[in-house]
Amino acid sequence: MERTVAQTARMAREASRELSAATIEQRNRALDAMAAALNKNRAYLVAENQLDLEAARADQLDAPLMSRLELNDKKISQLIDGLQALIRLPDPLNRTLMARELTPGLDLYRVSCPIGVLGIVFESRPDALVQIASLALKSGNAVLLKGGREAAKTNAALFKVLDRAVRETGIPEGWAGLLQTREDVNAMLSLEQDIDLLIPRGSNAFVRYIMEHTHILVMGHADGLCHTYVDAGADLDMAVSVTVDAKTQAYAVCNATETLLVHRDIAEKFLPAAAEALQAKGVRLLGDEAAQRIIGCEPASDEDWATEYLAPVLSIKVVSGVEEASAHINRYGSHHTDAIITNDELAKQYFISHVDSAGVYVNCSTRFADGYRYGFGAEVGISTSRLHARGPVGLEGLCTYKYILLGSGQTVAGTLDGTYPFTHRDLDCGKA
Amino acid sequence: MERTVAQTARMAREASRELSAATIEQRNRALDAMAAALNKNRAYLVAENQLDLEAARADQLDAPLMSRLELNDKKISQLIDGLQALIRLPDPLNRTLMARELTPGLDLYRVSCPIGVLGIVFESRPDALVQIASLALKSGNAVLLKGGREAAKTNAALFKVLDRAVRETGIPEGWAGLLQTREDVNAMLSLEQDIDLLIPRGSNAFVRYIMEHTHILVMGHADGLCHTYVDAGADLDMAVSVTVDAKTQAYAVCNATETLLVHRDIAEKFLPAAAEALQAKGVRLLGDEAAQRIIGCEPASDEDWATEYLAPVLSIKVVSGVEEASAHINRYGSHHTDAIITNDELAKQYFISHVDSAGVYVNCSTRFADGYRYGFGAEVGISTSRLHARGPVGLEGLCTYKYILLGSGQTVAGTLDGTYPFTHRDLDCGKA
Repeated sequence: MERTVAQTARMAREASRELSAATIEQRNRALDAMAAALNKNRAYLVAENQLDLEAARADQLDAPLMSRLELNDKKISQLIDGLQALIRLPDPLNRTLMARELTPGLDLYRVSCPIGVLGIVFESRPDALVQIASLALKSGNAVLLKGGREAAKTNAALFKVLDRAVRETGIPEGWAGLLQTREDVNAMLSLEQDIDLLIPRGSNAFVRYIMEHTHILVMGHADGLCHTYVDAGADLDMAVSVTVDAKTQAYAVCNATETLLVHRDIAEKFLPAAAEALQAKGVRLLGDEAAQRIIGCEPASDEDWATEYLAPVLSIKVVSGVEEASAHINRYGSHHTDAIITNDELAKQYFISHVDSAGVYVNCSTRFADGYRYGFGAEVGISTSRLHARGPVGLEGLCTYKYILLGSGQTVAGTLDGTYPFTHRDLDCGKA
Repeated sequence: MERTVAQTARMAREASRELSAATIEQRNRALDAMAAALNKNRAYLVAENQLDLEAARADQLDAPLMSRLELNDKKISQLIDGLQALIRLPDPLNRTLMARELTPGLDLYRVSCPIGVLGIVFESRPDALVQIASLALKSGNAVLLKGGREAAKTNAALFKVLDRAVRETGIPEGWAGLLQTREDVNAMLSLEQDIDLLIPRGSNAFVRYIMEHTHILVMGHADGLCHTYVDAGADLDMAVSVTVDAKTQAYAVCNATETLLVHRDIAEKFLPAAAEALQAKGVRLLGDEAAQRIIGCEPASDEDWATEYLAPVLSIKVVSGVEEASAHINRYGSHHTDAIITNDELAKQYFISHVDSAGVYVNCSTRFADGYRYGFGAEVGISTSRLHARGPVGLEGLCTYKYILLGSGQTVAGTLDGTYPFTHRDLDCGKA
């Protein structure tokens, strides 16, 4: 009765062929059925979640983890609201990205389409299962889901409820598959024939492990080591306010600033003010020799420049200018999000063109790196890869494109003998 | 004196930081210097190429290979013309792909930028070195180049001439590196820290080997197993003419049709006419039982459906309709380019939405799958991967993007307390 991971992936591939042809009305109807099924099965879902919570209490999970693991009536209502919001988002598929007449009567279109089959491994929040499955469905992708071990019963219940509701709307069996164990995740890694993209969410070590053990493209980030660089041309008040937000608005997040770089010409003025504001929030400061001299903080070691604290700790380095700051960021950073605070146009342009990160910010907090804040409506993760999708990834990052060439009998021989001369005339994308 | 591959890649990474900031004027000036240097060093280049040709003659290389290996005055002139055409192409960098106000005074831009460092392995044509190095330079990427063993002396000479000319225009040392041996290629495969994208060109086995031995993203195609499906709703004359072009316009190319699928309702009429036209061109026909019965051809085995002949051979299968044709293509094809010949709107729509290929064509020859024919001006290869770039890849496929967020002191805390309400208002992309 139990299917192997390879069989589940093969079924997902088959289902993805039909899903890619499902209209936006069909996909939205399935999302609506998801919402209705969650609403109807509240009692069952909460009861199954209680079993996970009891086991977690016996295992003495800490309070933040317990709170993330809990699926209560309020969280179910939020999930239903999220599904309704997703239904309202425009269709990411069948968008004409390019249109060009190659020769009269032969028109080329680049049109967005689903990637195919996604493999997504997520953390202990069971609400993640609903969010990911719904994003996959909206974008026409089949999906293999593997959640946290602690949420196994909740995830199984959610999957049962959602899968049945979605299939009753005519979406083919296999559109989603639930994996159970760590071995299942390992089995996914070699299924490059039937899985097109892996999105691992979790600890740095876990994401790195996935990246190193598969030939499937991995989207996501192992580290989030972000920098804020306060240039000599910075407005002092703005620099303090943005630095405090970038470090303290949240700690255990990938877009928090972990290292503060400061131009030596402004360090004497800026650092005492920044240190006072940061220490008032309980942030521990580590600095290079110059920073220690100015604010008397603890020493930072070379290792600190490469450390993502995810905690109220900030390393500080005084630099000679935007060149040294950019080089430091490219060397030690994780190509996630890095900010410069300056009113100097040259420094700003240098920073933008030289810093090799998914997000390069001027005069604002690194904490803005987020799909919701970017207005993407929904986010599947943040990518520090350079290819396919970079930075916060929404529905668009779950799509690729195909070229559609519509002709009326054109041959390549005819382009050589003059029957079909190339015109390469761009067409209006709305025409497709 | 000799650098290791890892050192060459590290230098390329360093150079890529400067290259990404080079203006289009600087990059075009370097391309112009390349053209001038080729023109000035014609005698030297042809002499070095003679040494490769002599060695190849001693090794009894066949005539087509010898002809590809040769670098003569005419080919040098064509390379110079190609460089001038590349200079005229618009800048693929610094294009604003999206612009959005997040909150008043905080504007988000998605802007195209170079990928970073490319590793490209190419076949024996030494002109490929010039084409690839110039595409990399135009798109602001550093590049590691490895050409065919047979062209070693020509490639070394070309590299010396081009590298000097480019660096004299101020492009940093290390923007390009020349690798020498097969072991150098193997060394590249583990340098994911300093190489962002591999583009292997060559035999199926070679491309597959690269894909299976690296965690770096590989762009390209191992196979080009393209199909033409003649639907019941096809115009007979068009079907014959397009099929003949798709099979015979060239043989040893990835976009030639290798399998012909025919709707059973049109097979009796279409196949005799197609067979006559194809056999007149010297094409050997293999068919399933139905095809054998109609045109008396040789039998095709299951293996034929998975074979890229690259030769005047065509396998033929009679199918029950567009569903079976699409399923056959998705199962046996290489997701490269597949065509339907039909005037039936439903069959056309089914084929477009179900066939999972980079190019899905209606009523035209699969041979159109080519960067020049698509109007991309220049082509680095054709990708059968689903992610990042699909189909013919021009300058645009050598670019990625970064998000640039320009603010005036905005904090995320301020979005929560109402100081900075999100507006998510799309801006004109021309504004950046």
